[in-house]
Amino acid sequence: MKKIILLLLTITSINSFAQTDSIFIRKIYDEALERGESYDNLRSLCKDIGARITGSAEAEMAVKWGEKLLNSYGFDNVYLQEIEVPHWERGTKEAAWIINEKGETLKLDILALGGSVGTKGLISGEVIGVENVKALQQLSENDVKDKIVFLNQAFDKKNIETFKSYGACYPIRGEGTSEAGKLNAKAVVIRSLATPEDDFPHTGTMRYEEGVNKIPGAAMSTNNATLLSKWLKQGKVTLKMEMDCKKYENVKSYNVIAEMNGKDEKIITWGGHLDSWDVGEGAHDDGAGIAHSIEALRILKTLNYKPNHKLRCVLFMNEENGNMGGKSYAKIASENKEEHICAIESDRGGFLPIGFDVSGTDKQVAFVNEFKKLLSGFELYRFRKGFGGVDISPLKEYYPNMIQLGLAINSQAYFNYHHTHNDVFENVNKRELELGGAAMATMIYLMDKNL
Amino acid sequence: MKKIILLLLTITSINSFAQTDSIFIRKIYDEALERGESYDNLRSLCKDIGARITGSAEAEMAVKWGEKLLNSYGFDNVYLQEIEVPHWERGTKEAAWIINEKGETLKLDILALGGSVGTKGLISGEVIGVENVKALQQLSENDVKDKIVFLNQAFDKKNIETFKSYGACYPIRGEGTSEAGKLNAKAVVIRSLATPEDDFPHTGTMRYEEGVNKIPGAAMSTNNATLLSKWLKQGKVTLKMEMDCKKYENVKSYNVIAEMNGKDEKIITWGGHLDSWDVGEGAHDDGAGIAHSIEALRILKTLNYKPNHKLRCVLFMNEENGNMGGKSYAKIASENKEEHICAIESDRGGFLPIGFDVSGTDKQVAFVNEFKKLLSGFELYRFRKGFGGVDISPLKEYYPNMIQLGLAINSQAYFNYHHTHNDVFENVNKRELELGGAAMATMIYLMDKNL
Repeated sequence: MKKIILLLLTITSINSFAQTDSIFIRKIYDEALERGESYDNLRSLCKDIGARITGSAEAEMAVKWGEKLLNSYGFDNVYLQEIEVPHWERGTKEAAWIINEKGETLKLDILALGGSVGTKGLISGEVIGVENVKALQQLSENDVKDKIVFLNQAFDKKNIETFKSYGACYPIRGEGTSEAGKLNAKAVVIRSLATPEDDFPHTGTMRYEEGVNKIPGAAMSTNNATLLSKWLKQGKVTLKMEMDCKKYENVKSYNVIAEMNGKDEKIITWGGHLDSWDVGEGAHDDGAGIAHSIEALRILKTLNYKPNHKLRCVLFMNEENGNMGGKSYAKIASENKEEHICAIESDRGGFLPIGFDVSGTDKQVAFVNEFKKLLSGFELYRFRKGFGGVDISPLKEYYPNMIQLGLAINSQAYFNYHHTHNDVFENVNKRELELGGAAMATMIYLMDKNL
Repeated sequence: MKKIILLLLTITSINSFAQTDSIFIRKIYDEALERGESYDNLRSLCKDIGARITGSAEAEMAVKWGEKLLNSYGFDNVYLQEIEVPHWERGTKEAAWIINEKGETLKLDILALGGSVGTKGLISGEVIGVENVKALQQLSENDVKDKIVFLNQAFDKKNIETFKSYGACYPIRGEGTSEAGKLNAKAVVIRSLATPEDDFPHTGTMRYEEGVNKIPGAAMSTNNATLLSKWLKQGKVTLKMEMDCKKYENVKSYNVIAEMNGKDEKIITWGGHLDSWDVGEGAHDDGAGIAHSIEALRILKTLNYKPNHKLRCVLFMNEENGNMGGKSYAKIASENKEEHICAIESDRGGFLPIGFDVSGTDKQVAFVNEFKKLLSGFELYRFRKGFGGVDISPLKEYYPNMIQLGLAINSQAYFNYHHTHNDVFENVNKRELELGGAAMATMIYLMDKNL
C-alpha cells in the first residue's frame, strides 16, 4: 500500500512538474504573441538607425540604442563591455561593367567584399572564369597574372538547409581573394552567396592571408554571374571596375549587456549581434537576433520569473567582420573567472523558428531532446547536433563542457536577403519574429531550471 | 543457425526497404529543387490568368490552362469532369465611409463578401458594434433594425496555428449577414479575417440561410475596424456604403484531371483548387496547391515511378464559394463505383511545408506517423490528427474508411494574404513552393507503396 502511495506521489510530482513547465511556456508564448515588443524594437533598430557596420557612427548609435532600451526595461544590471573592433568603409565609388568581343557592355550590380582594398582608380582586365577555390588553386601564375578572376560557385539547390549551401560556397568569398592574390591576379569578382536568381549583390567578409598580395574583391548578383558565365563561353570578356573601399585604424566599441540575477553566480548567456553590414537595414541579419534576445529577457522579467542562475543577454558587436565582440566577451569572462554553463545564439534571421541546434556532447544533445515532447506543442521540432553560433563559439575554448545552442530557423528565404540592400524590416513577418523570441525565452527557462 | 540466417535476411530486407524509400524520396526532392517546374507554373497561372473566381472568363481560361499543361506532361489520361457551379460578380461599385458626430469622415478599405447582394444604390445607417455572432444573437430586432451591424471579432493572437484563429472568427463572415438579416439590419460590415493590422480587406464566402432577409455584407481592413471601434466608443457613427455585386445563374465548369495508371484500379487522389477569389492572383490560395499537385505527378512520372494504384491529380473548381468541384467529384466517383483509398490536399498556401494533418482513425494517424523518421531528414515533422481539406472532404461520405491528408504548412503569414489584392506571385518563395511539391510527391509515393 505504501509503495503504491509513493508511486502515485512520484507520478503526480513528475506530472505536475511537466505541467508547470507547460503552463509557464504557454505564458511565455502568450506574452510574445499578445503583448510582444520584439517587432517594434526591430522596426526602431532598422528605421531609426539602419545599417550599422562596426566602426560606423550608426554602430555607435546602436550601442546607445541598446543600452537605453535595456535600461528602460529595468533589468538588474545593464552595462557596456569595452572592446576593440576593426573599421572598414565601402567609400563612395563602386562600379563595374563587362565588355565582350562584340563590344557589348553590361553594368554589373556589385558590392565590394567587406575588408577589401580599393582599386586605386579604374582598373581593367581580362576575366578568367573559375568554378571554385580548389580549381583556382590548380592554376599557375601564368594562367592568372593580371587577369580578373571570376569565381562562379553556385549554391547547391539540393541541400534542404540553405546554410549548408552557404557553407560550401563560403571559400570563394572568404579565401578567393587571397588565393588569386598569390597568383598575382588583378582583382577577384565572385558570384554572390545567394539562393535566388536575382539582381541583388551580397557582400560579406573576406580575409587576406598574412603577407599576401592584397587585391580587390567584389560580389556580383547571381543574374550577373549567370550572364558573365554565358559570355565567357562565347569569347573573351573584359571587366572594368572601380572601388575606393578602405580599412582604417581599429576603434573602440562595446558589447551591450543586461542581466537578471539568479540564486547562484553560474551564468546562462545568450544573444545576437548588434552590428550589421553597411547595406540594407540588417533586419534579418541580425536585427532579428537582437530583437529575439532582448524580448526573451523582457518576457522572463515580465512573467516575474526568478532564475536559478544569472541570466545574461548580450548584444554582441562585430560579428560580421572580425567577431571581436564574441572573442573579447569570452576572454573577459574567463579572466573574471565566471562560470558559464550555457550559451544560446540567434543569428539565422527572423523567420519561423523550428527548433535548436545543439553544440555539445551526445549526452547534451540527448538532454535537449528530452524537451522535444514539451515543445512540439509550440511547433518546435528539430533538436539535433549542430552549430550554436559565431558570437558564442569563442566561449568553448574557455568552457569546453558548456552546452551551446543555436536557434534553428526556416532557412529557405534567408539567403534572399542576407548581406544585401534588401535585408529590410518589411521582409520580416511579425508573428514569426515573435515566435523566435518566445522560443529563446523558453529554452533559457528550460536550461535555467534543468542545468 | 537457420534462425539466425532468417533473422539476418529479415533485417536486411527491412533495411533495404527503408533505404530504397529514402533514396527515392531524395530523388523526388532533387527533382523538385534542381529541375522543379512548380514556380514557373505558378507564375503562369498568376500572371497569364490572375484572379479566377468560379463563373468568370478567367476561371474558364484556368481550366484550359490546366488541361493544356497536364497534356504537355504526357500523363496516361487527362480529361475534364463537367460540373455546375455558382456565378457571382463583384460588379463595379464598391465603396464605404464612416462619419462621426464631429463630422469627421473616413473612407474605408472594403470588399463585398462573396455571394453578397448589392446595396441597390447608396445606403446609410447608424453603426452598431457587436463583438461576434453570439453577441449579435443576444440582441433584439429593436436594437438592430435599420442599423448597420459591425462585427469586430479579432484573431486570437495566442493561437500558434493561425488557422485556429481563422476558424474561430469564421462565423462573423459566414453567418453574420444571415443573423443580422433576421433582425432586419440594413447591412453588415465585418473586421477582415486577418492576422496583421494593415489596410487590406479580405473577402471570402458568406451564406444566406434559406428564406432569410438578404442584406449586403462586406469586410473592411483590420486597421479600419480598429479605428471604427475607437470611434464607436466616442459616440454615434454613421456608415454609408454602395456595392453592386450580384449573383447570376449557375454555369457549367470543370474539374481538370490527370492520371497515371497503376497495377490495380484502386485510387489515390490529390489536388488543390483552380478557382480563386476575384482579387489578387490567388497565388497562395490556391495557386500554390495547384502547382504542388501538378508537380507531384510530374515528378513521379519523370522518375519513372510505376505505381501500384491509380494516381489521380485533380484541379478542383469552385472550392471558394460552393465546393461544387469537391462535391461533384465525390458523387461521380461513387456513381462510377471507384475505389478511393486515399486523398491528399494542398490548400494552405505556398509557404514552408512542415508535415501532414491526418483525417482518419487513430490507427491511420499512427500509420502515417510510421514515416516520421524517414521524413524528418526532409524537415517534415508534424503528423497529427487534423483536417484533410475542403475539396476532398465530400469523399468521406462515400468512402468512410479512406485516409485523408492535408499538407501542413507554416501558417504564420497565410492570413496576411488570404483573399486579398495582396495574394500575388511575388509573395511566394520559390524554394518553399518547391518543397511543398516534393512533400506531396513523397506522401503520394509512401501511400501508394504502403496502402
